[in-house]
Amino acid sequence: MKSELKKMLEYLEIGDLVLENGTLIRNVRIAYNVYGNIDNAEKIIWICHALTANSDAETWWPEMIGKDEIFNTDKHAIICANVLGSCYGTTFECEEEKPLITVRDMVSAHQKLADSLKISSIDFLLGGSLGGMQCLEWSIINPDFIKNLFVIATNCKHSSWGIAFNEAQRMALELGEKGLDAARAIAMLSYRNYKTYEYSQVDDINAADDFSAASYQRYQGEKLRKRFTPSAYYSLSKSMDSNNVGRNRGSLEKALSKITAKTLVIGIDSDILFPVNEQQYIAKNMENAVYEQIKSKYGHDGFLLETDKIKTLLKKHFDFL
Amino acid sequence: MKSELKKMLEYLEIGDLVLENGTLIRNVRIAYNVYGNIDNAEKIIWICHALTANSDAETWWPEMIGKDEIFNTDKHAIICANVLGSCYGTTFECEEEKPLITVRDMVSAHQKLADSLKISSIDFLLGGSLGGMQCLEWSIINPDFIKNLFVIATNCKHSSWGIAFNEAQRMALELGEKGLDAARAIAMLSYRNYKTYEYSQVDDINAADDFSAASYQRYQGEKLRKRFTPSAYYSLSKSMDSNNVGRNRGSLEKALSKITAKTLVIGIDSDILFPVNEQQYIAKNMENAVYEQIKSKYGHDGFLLETDKIKTLLKKHFDFL
Repeated sequence: MKSELKKMLEYLEIGDLVLENGTLIRNVRIAYNVYGNIDNAEKIIWICHALTANSDAETWWPEMIGKDEIFNTDKHAIICANVLGSCYGTTFECEEEKPLITVRDMVSAHQKLADSLKISSIDFLLGGSLGGMQCLEWSIINPDFIKNLFVIATNCKHSSWGIAFNEAQRMALELGEKGLDAARAIAMLSYRNYKTYEYSQVDDINAADDFSAASYQRYQGEKLRKRFTPSAYYSLSKSMDSNNVGRNRGSLEKALSKITAKTLVIGIDSDILFPVNEQQYIAKNMENAVYEQIKSKYGHDGFLLETDKIKTLLKKHFDFL
Repeated sequence: MKSELKKMLEYLEIGDLVLENGTLIRNVRIAYNVYGNIDNAEKIIWICHALTANSDAETWWPEMIGKDEIFNTDKHAIICANVLGSCYGTTFECEEEKPLITVRDMVSAHQKLADSLKISSIDFLLGGSLGGMQCLEWSIINPDFIKNLFVIATNCKHSSWGIAFNEAQRMALELGEKGLDAARAIAMLSYRNYKTYEYSQVDDINAADDFSAASYQRYQGEKLRKRFTPSAYYSLSKSMDSNNVGRNRGSLEKALSKITAKTLVIGIDSDILFPVNEQQYIAKNMENAVYEQIKSKYGHDGFLLETDKIKTLLKKHFDFL
């Protein structure tokens, strides 16, 4: 396969896949982006995207990927693939209307993609939130395949609080197409926090109605509805709930101890959805991991927004960047 | 009027009322409960209820009200009235389908009820959450009328975060009757917190679906739908948003300084919806207030559940209890 510098969305058929719960999905097609050239890249960098993102990582993480960026398209090949269940190009057929796709299933599909792309190992695997969950699973399923690892604002088992947030969103999704607006508005509460809303949504002292925080919620809901689908949102939120590296592996500790990659785990001090104790737990139970914490006013969304702080820590811990 | 020991729901017609925004509501009928005897009570105690509660305070605060309880029905007359906009007996007519009822409007109605009951002053006014908002407003509107005051888990201006939570709930409510389930599920996330869900919703280590936190959300939603109405929920959430003692009074500080009652303000350390800085702010800006903080694992719901801790603090600060 002759690789060129390509930034366009590509598709690859990986055939059928048996999901973790035994369900067969057929004709799986993975949508993915490659920035740079796989064949002569110094390093293969694989980015796992989060809930409503897509494989065009440069669009949602522009400060991280580019000619002069930390993920340098002149030197590295940077790959990002759209996850199973998303609505950004990855597709499959299934007899069940709502098959449960776990984080492990997402990883299985991407391992097949990597094999098809003749990638023998990933030099640097990284992701935040649902992306981080995939990174951990991949590094447990195939430790030798992953040389270096970076996860941020994620966990190794989704919390009951996180599941409760997701269930409230699914309850809204079941009420019709505009349920996606409400689901997104709920999610925003967990991506930000009390203080974020307090300083960004300010009203006239004499207001009694039409508050800016209310408009913000509606705006965010509408914005997502225009670019996403309720069924994809439903599926991905179930995937997130499923996250538990300890499932059928004895314990969380045993699963995490299988990871051999040199690892950086970052927690964000203001993240209420994935509080820092979750990232501290991950690092503590891995053989070769360092924990770092960043201050942010953005809460969970800090993993997308605090790129300067993230880059500084990446350079500190990974020589090749 | 001959008063007897009565615990039954009573109704009183208070006529018409002009709301804060100028809207006229007609034939206002207030539903209320009196425990004890107003005419020969040592103290008149008035409880303001929270969002989805009703005037039968003994049912939702049983450890606080009764023959041998801190609000002693043998010695005190304890009054609780259902707020404007609720679905527990208080009614009115209005040409507008969804008039904005502010916390001040709720208080205006209850002042009329108190006047009709020939109550010349309230010895002890108290409430938590939306109830506390009413207490503060009442003490500002009519300072001489309120002798002692206790508020818990409340604020003097509803936060942008709180408004955002409420708006997400209203977005769900607009999607049909089952929107109330989703709204309640959203609200539960703010009444509890990460830790509450973590220790109360536990699953098998090998579970990939059907998590207890998800069932809990559905259960709480259904439970509320069976006893409440979407329109009342909508109205009351808008009332909560409207809470701002500073509106058209210059500032929050100026408004709070008008309160003369001896006051106890309690914050709950784990309350994410009304964080303790809000109660500290209230106490700091009042002439005659003390701030106390209680530890609770229940978050905001601690104001209903931590009755032992609350009673200890009430006895410490109010001799007559």
